[in-house]
Amino acid sequence: SFSQDIDHILETQSALAVDLGGTNLRVAIICMRGNIVKKYTQPNPKTYEARIQLILQMCADAIRDAVVLNCRILGVGISTGGRVNPQEGVVLHSTKLIQEWSSVDLRTPISDALHLPVWVDNDGNCAALAERKFGHGKGVENFVTIITGTGIGGGIIQHHELVHGSTFCAAELGHIMVSLDGPECMCGSRGCIEAYASGMALQREAKRLHDEDLLKVEGMDMKLVEPVTAVHLINAARLGNSKAEAVLNTASTALGVGITNILHMVNPSLVILSGVLASYYQAPVQHIISSRALSSTQGIKIVKSDLEEPALLGAASMVLDYTTRRIY
Amino acid sequence: SFSQDIDHILETQSALAVDLGGTNLRVAIICMRGNIVKKYTQPNPKTYEARIQLILQMCADAIRDAVVLNCRILGVGISTGGRVNPQEGVVLHSTKLIQEWSSVDLRTPISDALHLPVWVDNDGNCAALAERKFGHGKGVENFVTIITGTGIGGGIIQHHELVHGSTFCAAELGHIMVSLDGPECMCGSRGCIEAYASGMALQREAKRLHDEDLLKVEGMDMKLVEPVTAVHLINAARLGNSKAEAVLNTASTALGVGITNILHMVNPSLVILSGVLASYYQAPVQHIISSRALSSTQGIKIVKSDLEEPALLGAASMVLDYTTRRIY
Ligand SMILES: [Ca+2]
Ligand SMILES: [Ca+2]
Ligand SMILES: [Zn+2]
Ligand SMILES: [Zn+2]
Repeated sequence: SFSQDIDHILETQSALAVDLGGTNLRVAIICMRGNIVKKYTQPNPKTYEARIQLILQMCADAIRDAVVLNCRILGVGISTGGRVNPQEGVVLHSTKLIQEWSSVDLRTPISDALHLPVWVDNDGNCAALAERKFGHGKGVENFVTIITGTGIGGGIIQHHELVHGSTFCAAELGHIMVSLDGPECMCGSRGCIEAYASGMALQREAKRLHDEDLLKVEGMDMKLVEPVTAVHLINAARLGNSKAEAVLNTASTALGVGITNILHMVNPSLVILSGVLASYYQAPVQHIISSRALSSTQGIKIVKSDLEEPALLGAASMVLDYTTRRIY
Repeated sequence: SFSQDIDHILETQSALAVDLGGTNLRVAIICMRGNIVKKYTQPNPKTYEARIQLILQMCADAIRDAVVLNCRILGVGISTGGRVNPQEGVVLHSTKLIQEWSSVDLRTPISDALHLPVWVDNDGNCAALAERKFGHGKGVENFVTIITGTGIGGGIIQHHELVHGSTFCAAELGHIMVSLDGPECMCGSRGCIEAYASGMALQREAKRLHDEDLLKVEGMDMKLVEPVTAVHLINAARLGNSKAEAVLNTASTALGVGITNILHMVNPSLVILSGVLASYYQAPVQHIISSRALSSTQGIKIVKSDLEEPALLGAASMVLDYTTRRIY
């Protein structure tokens, strides 16, 4: 039947999605419906050469697997940290979070090697595209997404479209500053919400407390060999460690004030939090907004993303939306 | 001739512009070319009743004068502090800067009394409209304006149009927070750029220094009777008063960090500073941006407005643009 034919197309038409983060390089086969058929993860190499090498190799592996999995790959969508010119498929500039990653043409080498069309955008922007196509952003005219991973990224949708700005530097929401001084950020400035509230920032504070022997609490089991992370900080705070609580309070306040700044600037009707720390931050951010935002924005909804992998799904959506438009 | 006819139309077709600020209530007759034909200034009354009364009286006086001045008034444009629903002509909410000024329908009583169409928008938004029609914003797709008066207002133009947001709270640029704590703001929050860098904030600091007898410097003539203002602070700093310098440094840094946040969120190609402190802030803001903004926005132009009265001219432009569109 016709509906079975459509089902078949939705099953087999797929995208290769690549996500280049501060820690990992991930590749996924994602079908038209947004299902992640297969996913590959490696540490993101520290040099340009090794990174491009690994992207090509992981993509080639995935393309081979896609044949067996009956997925027809329509193109490659790449989500990356840093400022991106999506028209050219070029990474313009990245912070120290991803080294050797400025003025990098990603489209040409990858398209040449894989014989597939390539789309590229910033990771926070990709997360917003994912919410628009698959998540809470469906049909919402104006919304903002904030993704907390190693760093903090964001995307702004206005009139159903991404805001890229005049030099592709809009929605750099991790680098909203909420302090005239504050902790140093990977971007070279200080007091950015990424420097207060990202996974990396919490890990820095967790390590500092651990080094001063202040992270331990009764009931918390921590082997000296395992790396200290944000999770230890959150667990310590839950078990009553006041130093850990203070660090997390500052982080939540910084993120909440940063998001309030977004409300006062673009006034979306919805803010979507995603990434590993989203469920932790949701309540305190809502609280900060209710005490610091102008009353006209108090009706804002702060929700947690339902999507497992916003950056990868958004990278895929660039391929799926474009090729869909072209084919039908 | 036809060109003389057009000249005549441009001379005589006029708007009544009203600006409701934290200190003054101003009304002006402004012709199609943007010339301010006549201007009226009164202190902005503290109560709703007295304010509406005075607006009506000043407008009636101006309409009478307009006949003599050969200006045909096409309508009334109102610029006001606070959040405004321009579709309804209603002030939704104001900070303590303008008291008794929330949920105020301006259009109905003024239109009924004067028998003229009425347009209303936020003062910062009006300043942006003025720059678009008469100033540095002509033909610029994405720009932002910041107006420093008693408070701080702003407007964002994207794709040549104002950004109002989902609840008319976009571009509340005075309430961008650049500190997790910081000085108290009229909006009820803390650390807003208005609380650091507005005329009111500088006056507060000037008074504080004066009360502690720290504002005096050799060569500065200050009678005890005159009210202490931002001007005394700037003069004291120029004459080497290090306390005054420190206050102004903090104010400039706060404004610069706030504007950098705007660059990282909407990434305009141009920022226009207006208001009494614009020429003072231009250089330090540029300096802060060069040390704290992401490299992809470093090409931003920070200019000082050429317009004598951005809020009034923007209020007039709502009338002139709309009626022009309707007539021709
Ligand atoms: Ca972004
Ligand atoms: Ca505004
Ligand atoms: Zn930063
Ligand atoms: Zn404020």
